[in-house]
Amino acid sequence: MSSTGPTIAQVGEFPLIASLVRDLPSSPAISVGPGDDGAVFLVDGSAVVSTDVLVEGVHFRRSWSEAEDVGRKSVAVNVADIEAMGAVPVALVVGLSAPGDLPASWARECMTGMREESALAGVSVVGGDTTGGPVVTISITVIGQTAGLAPVRRDGAVPGDVVAIRGRLGWAAAGLVVLGRGFRSPRAVVDAQRCPEVAYGAGRQAALAGAHAMIDLSDGLVADLGHIADASGFAIDIDTARLDVAEPIVTVGMATGLDPMLWVLGGGEDHALAATFAPGTVPDDWQVIGRVLDPQDAPEPTVLVDGQPWEHPGGWTHF
Amino acid sequence: MSSTGPTIAQVGEFPLIASLVRDLPSSPAISVGPGDDGAVFLVDGSAVVSTDVLVEGVHFRRSWSEAEDVGRKSVAVNVADIEAMGAVPVALVVGLSAPGDLPASWARECMTGMREESALAGVSVVGGDTTGGPVVTISITVIGQTAGLAPVRRDGAVPGDVVAIRGRLGWAAAGLVVLGRGFRSPRAVVDAQRCPEVAYGAGRQAALAGAHAMIDLSDGLVADLGHIADASGFAIDIDTARLDVAEPIVTVGMATGLDPMLWVLGGGEDHALAATFAPGTVPDDWQVIGRVLDPQDAPEPTVLVDGQPWEHPGGWTHF
Repeated sequence: MSSTGPTIAQVGEFPLIASLVRDLPSSPAISVGPGDDGAVFLVDGSAVVSTDVLVEGVHFRRSWSEAEDVGRKSVAVNVADIEAMGAVPVALVVGLSAPGDLPASWARECMTGMREESALAGVSVVGGDTTGGPVVTISITVIGQTAGLAPVRRDGAVPGDVVAIRGRLGWAAAGLVVLGRGFRSPRAVVDAQRCPEVAYGAGRQAALAGAHAMIDLSDGLVADLGHIADASGFAIDIDTARLDVAEPIVTVGMATGLDPMLWVLGGGEDHALAATFAPGTVPDDWQVIGRVLDPQDAPEPTVLVDGQPWEHPGGWTHF
Repeated sequence: MSSTGPTIAQVGEFPLIASLVRDLPSSPAISVGPGDDGAVFLVDGSAVVSTDVLVEGVHFRRSWSEAEDVGRKSVAVNVADIEAMGAVPVALVVGLSAPGDLPASWARECMTGMREESALAGVSVVGGDTTGGPVVTISITVIGQTAGLAPVRRDGAVPGDVVAIRGRLGWAAAGLVVLGRGFRSPRAVVDAQRCPEVAYGAGRQAALAGAHAMIDLSDGLVADLGHIADASGFAIDIDTARLDVAEPIVTVGMATGLDPMLWVLGGGEDHALAATFAPGTVPDDWQVIGRVLDPQDAPEPTVLVDGQPWEHPGGWTHF
C-alpha cells in the first residue's frame, strides 16, 4: 500500500473518475459503458438489483485492510445478494465518497480490488460517482438477470425442507476478534474479515436445483435464517452437530477463551448462502445443517438451535 | 422539521429499514419489492443505470435544507441522468449512511421526500441499505429502460446541429450565494438550491424527436456542454442573447454586485437537460441556445461563448 504520492484533492474529481474507469473490461452485453450519463446493457429476463454501503470505521478500517481488500469486499458483499436471488450478476456501479487527503493511490488500489473481484464474479463495472466526504464510503449497486428462472425469495420455505449452506461461517467474526486484540494471525480468519470468499455461482446452482428459499448470510446464520423463518412462516431448527467449526476458528477460540460456536451461529460478514430444498434435491457442495419444522411441532416462525431457543445475541447491528 | 424524538441508534437498523420501506408504492413491473436480498423487476429493452452520491456538508447542509428536500434532491439528480439518456426510469435503490444521533424523524422525512419525487418521476423505490457513518450520505442508483429507442449518448453531436436546453440555469448557484451569505430569499433560488426542478419526461421527449446527443447539466452549462464537445469531437458555440436570465437571479446579482450570467453559464445543480438536434427537429418547450460548429470554423472540440473562449472557471469540483 502506498500512502505517499498525490491526494485525490490534488488529482481532482474528473481525472480521478477517468483513472478509475480506464481500461475497464467490457462485455458484449454492455452497449454503453462508463463516461456517459448512464450505462446501458442488456438484461436477460427480469432485472435483479441490490445495494450495499461500506463505511470506513464501521465496515472496515484503513489500518486493518489494504485498499484492494476493501474494494474486493465491497463487490463481494453485493454480488452475494444477487446470488441469493438465484440470479446471474451482470453490471455494477460504484459510489465513492472520500476525504480530499486520501492518497489517490488508495482510490486506485481500491478500484483494482473491485475490478479483480468483479472479474471473479463475472460482472462488469459500468459506472460510478466520486465525491468528497469525511470518511471513505463505498456504495455499490449490482444488477443481475433472472435468465429464465424465477427468483428465489426468502418466503418459499415449507415444512419438510432441509436447510443447507454453501460457504464459510464464523471466519470473519473470529478475524474481527483477532484484529480487535491487535493480532494479525491466524492469517486465514484475518483475511476472511478483510474480504469474504463468496462461492460465485452457488446461488445459481441452488436455483437450478429448485431451491425453495435462499438468503445471503451477511448478519449471521441464526439472524438470517430468522428472515427466512419470518418470511415463510415456519420454524427452522439448526443441528449444530452438522456445523463445521474450522480449525483456525478453533484456534482463535482456544487463544481467547471464547466459544467458537458463537461465531459460527452469530457471526456475520462471511456471506455464505443458506437455502432450503426439498429432501434429495440439495446440490453438490452444499451442506445440510438443519430443517424446516412442521407448525404442529413448532408453531412460531423462529430459529431453534438443536431444538432450543438460542439465547445469544445474533447478528450485527450498525449505529 | 422535528429534531426531537428517538434517534436512529435508538430505533435500530432493522426497524429503520422497515419503516423506510413501509407502504412503498408498487408497480406492475416490480415482482419482488424491498425486503428480500434483491428486488426484481421487468426492463423493456436495454437497462440504463446511473448512480449519484450526496454527502452532508458537500452537497447539502441539514441547517439549510429540510430532510424532505434532501430526499427529493437525491432522487431528482439521479433520474435526471436516466432522462439524459432518453430512457424511462423504472426503479431505484437507496443507500443511507447516517450518524446514530440523527433523529429517526429526519430519516423518515428524507424518505418521504424520496417517495414524493419518485412518484413525480414515475419510478419505484425497490430497495436499500442503511448503515452508520459520521455524516448523512445518500447514494441512489436509478435503473431505467430504453423502451424501443437507442440511448442518446454524449458523442452524437454533428456540425450544423442546434443546441437546446430544457430547464433552468443558474438558479441553484444563485441560491447557494444567498444561503452562503446567511439569507433565505429570494425564496425561488433558495428552493432551487435545496432541490432542482427536473422536467421529467423531457429526455424521453428529446429522444423521440431524434436528439443526436444529450447531457444532464449537473456541473454547469459550459462544463457539461464541454463533455458533449469532447465526446463528439466538435466545438459548440453558446449564444448568450438566447439565454434567459430569470428575474430572481437578476435580483441576487444586483444585491451582491455579481454578474448573474456567470451563474447561468457556470453554475451547477439545476439539472436542466441539454441536447443537440438537427435544425427543425427541436421539440416544443426546448429552447435553442447555440449550435455545433463546423471543424473548419473551430478545429478544437471546445465550448465557445458568443464565439469566444470562456475564461471563467466552469463547473463544480468536489474535494
